[in-house]
Amino acid sequence: MPRFRFTVIASIAISTLAYADATPTHIAAADVATAIKLRDQAMNDGTAYAIVAGLSTEIGPRLAGGMNDQRARDWVAARFKALGFDKVTSEPVKFPRWVRNSEHAEILAPYPQKLAVLALGGSVGTPKGGISADVVAFKTLDELKAASAAQVKDKIAYIGFHMAASKDGHTYGEAVGARVIGASVAAGFGAKAIVIRSIGSDNERLPHTGVLQYDPKIARIPAAAISNSDADLLEHMLTLGQPVRLNLALDCGTQGEYTGANVIGEITGSEHPEEVIVIGGHLDSWDPGTGAIDDGAGVAITMAAAHLIGQLPQRPKRTIRVVAFANEEAGMYGANAYAEAHKNDVAKHLIGSESDFGAGRIWRLSAQVKPEALGAIDQIMQLLAPLGVERGGDHAHGGDFGAMGAQGMAILDLGQDGTDYFNWHHTANDTMDKIDPKALAQNVAVYATYAYMAAQAVGDFGSKPGAFASAKEED
Amino acid sequence: MPRFRFTVIASIAISTLAYADATPTHIAAADVATAIKLRDQAMNDGTAYAIVAGLSTEIGPRLAGGMNDQRARDWVAARFKALGFDKVTSEPVKFPRWVRNSEHAEILAPYPQKLAVLALGGSVGTPKGGISADVVAFKTLDELKAASAAQVKDKIAYIGFHMAASKDGHTYGEAVGARVIGASVAAGFGAKAIVIRSIGSDNERLPHTGVLQYDPKIARIPAAAISNSDADLLEHMLTLGQPVRLNLALDCGTQGEYTGANVIGEITGSEHPEEVIVIGGHLDSWDPGTGAIDDGAGVAITMAAAHLIGQLPQRPKRTIRVVAFANEEAGMYGANAYAEAHKNDVAKHLIGSESDFGAGRIWRLSAQVKPEALGAIDQIMQLLAPLGVERGGDHAHGGDFGAMGAQGMAILDLGQDGTDYFNWHHTANDTMDKIDPKALAQNVAVYATYAYMAAQAVGDFGSKPGAFASAKEED
Repeated sequence: MPRFRFTVIASIAISTLAYADATPTHIAAADVATAIKLRDQAMNDGTAYAIVAGLSTEIGPRLAGGMNDQRARDWVAARFKALGFDKVTSEPVKFPRWVRNSEHAEILAPYPQKLAVLALGGSVGTPKGGISADVVAFKTLDELKAASAAQVKDKIAYIGFHMAASKDGHTYGEAVGARVIGASVAAGFGAKAIVIRSIGSDNERLPHTGVLQYDPKIARIPAAAISNSDADLLEHMLTLGQPVRLNLALDCGTQGEYTGANVIGEITGSEHPEEVIVIGGHLDSWDPGTGAIDDGAGVAITMAAAHLIGQLPQRPKRTIRVVAFANEEAGMYGANAYAEAHKNDVAKHLIGSESDFGAGRIWRLSAQVKPEALGAIDQIMQLLAPLGVERGGDHAHGGDFGAMGAQGMAILDLGQDGTDYFNWHHTANDTMDKIDPKALAQNVAVYATYAYMAAQAVGDFGSKPGAFASAKEED
Repeated sequence: MPRFRFTVIASIAISTLAYADATPTHIAAADVATAIKLRDQAMNDGTAYAIVAGLSTEIGPRLAGGMNDQRARDWVAARFKALGFDKVTSEPVKFPRWVRNSEHAEILAPYPQKLAVLALGGSVGTPKGGISADVVAFKTLDELKAASAAQVKDKIAYIGFHMAASKDGHTYGEAVGARVIGASVAAGFGAKAIVIRSIGSDNERLPHTGVLQYDPKIARIPAAAISNSDADLLEHMLTLGQPVRLNLALDCGTQGEYTGANVIGEITGSEHPEEVIVIGGHLDSWDPGTGAIDDGAGVAITMAAAHLIGQLPQRPKRTIRVVAFANEEAGMYGANAYAEAHKNDVAKHLIGSESDFGAGRIWRLSAQVKPEALGAIDQIMQLLAPLGVERGGDHAHGGDFGAMGAQGMAILDLGQDGTDYFNWHHTANDTMDKIDPKALAQNVAVYATYAYMAAQAVGDFGSKPGAFASAKEED
């Protein structure tokens, strides 16, 4: 999940927004009672764990456009049906197909060492045999930005910033720029390639991949990440005072266009089937791991929550829609396709939430809704507080629903504890053994409770074209 | 460090042993005072960290007989000299040369997945293209032992025992049999190959290698370990009820004989240069990591301890000898060569200790000494207790000095906290960033204090041929 990339969210002065409908949104007592039962049942339900274990085991790595893309979509569609969803559809998503074949990095001199490395997503390859050049090292992206061509030209640039762990993931935002734009900054100074310290809070020998964005005005150079352990090694070697010469060989690149799809399952509403509560996660994953925490967990949590709502004696008043997004990792292609396809339905999307921050417990709820809906949010909070959820602020990112949010859809962010998340994020270590089934069930309980209450709410949450335009997430 | 492999240590009834010299061994007050200064200085000394960082960075992986074997020996010899050791020698060690070229494992059916795998040390290779067969799974080595040829024949046997972490490493002893003899047990039932869950307490996507021992009477089959994360995946897939078909391709094997060496540095004693306190670690490492914790740390701790003793205004009375052993990993070849070369000097080896359990703090001292030396051990303990060291029992393993111990050399075991050790042991994750410099300095303080006090002791610790024969460690 690259939700922090250069996002500028203007804080919304809710009180200054004008809404047509000033009737406070609320949830009736009988629906609250049902939500409590649903919540408590979900806390002991294993559906989400079974889904993510199945997806990790039966499909595994799901690089967008790769050999498992179609298999994963078929799997999810079949699972929606097996879980009793009323309607299963898909909507096409086009994107450039990036392929990873192999990568190799090694220190040639003064002390030969092989390095654990992954190409960054979207990177161009190197010539066969790789690029060999001396390393010029920078502590941060800013330090690289302040460099000169004299320092960098014909070298392999290196950025060594080591991100810290944090519960809310803000430290990812501090670190990820090196990965996203480092290549073009280095290329602007004439670098032959860039190697970065992995954007991860671990000290394991497993590199973190993730997408980069080339500046179209600057030559594209190969870009890769070495593991934090290897970064320590390289930096220690650099302190010894001799030039460090590196070989970087990447066999990867973009090959044509691919048409994937967002896979969508619905529990159809009984009174207002055309009005939807949208939840979901993204189905694609980076390829080194099995995509359990990023984002099999999000798909599983939201599928399981909707499934549990679907198990109630009666369908909810409004539709619960679960979206398994295509290709989030390379740049939210599924999210943008969804927003484009549904740009005329913004007001019918009552509220939306994506789960895409691993499988840790939800600890914070932030709501971007109209002021008159804050009472309903308070009602939801009353049921979530016993699960350890705190009330956060009044703006929300929305993840893959951010593009819908930018078009005016109300958004609820259910913030997960991400303290461990960036130890495993985008690495081979993204596997199902990192998931605590109880924490996953807590997520399901939160989603099921909230989605059901929103579906039953008397009144809306403020979705309408342009309602939250100031919160647009830049991609 | 395979110190737990099928070791049967008979507890020694110290009180029943008869010694010629009944004068209690002790350390004079002035020497105790010097030891206290040495200890406190060592706690703030960075020599060991510099050594292990240098060895990891400038040499890195040190597979016995591999391309770094000679380089590592040259490096250590040069470092001994640079650190002011009086005498640097080496003693040849011969062993079969095992080579790892590549390894690959993947589930072919029902759900294709690539697995993170390492060949076990000493394993034969597979035919080109690998071996493809259904998996027959066992929870433990004992369960495999109780199997039948009907179950196992022509299959790939799998053992899934997951070792727990423990401070003293006893859980390694419970687990490692699957790695050491699993191949021959499986081959006895006609298995084509064996794959085991890594012998490690982590849940990372990095497999643990380590040596196996083939039964010479049974056909040799290829053997490999998959990471704990992959083991979870495989086991989950096996629960789904369909046969799981695996491909295992190992390009590895034994190629002729190699002559390496134990590298030895000495701080020469001023009064009894022929009497030695022997400490050390092993210089070889498994190849996926840089051999920082196994056993660069042990080499660094003992080199630094002797170096600090060598920095005192006067040489100690007896010689401090540091042995950087060759090829411990494939079966204690250096240890056995040392014991053979010095079998007539047992009584001159006052006492010996190997550091080979990572870089965690020393928390326990166990002593295999004559009863009349227990007072001196108590004196040593008085200085070590403030560093967090407890008094353990009266038998000791000795690690690479175990073979000398079996010949009658007194041994002190300085047990390190190994709670984290088996997360990284024999994996690519064995890198210098796993080492806490303060914990490493505590190790040096313990070794320097003890070695100095032993070198100054009035009296001996009971070393003589046959003295501790009941404690023989079976290899």
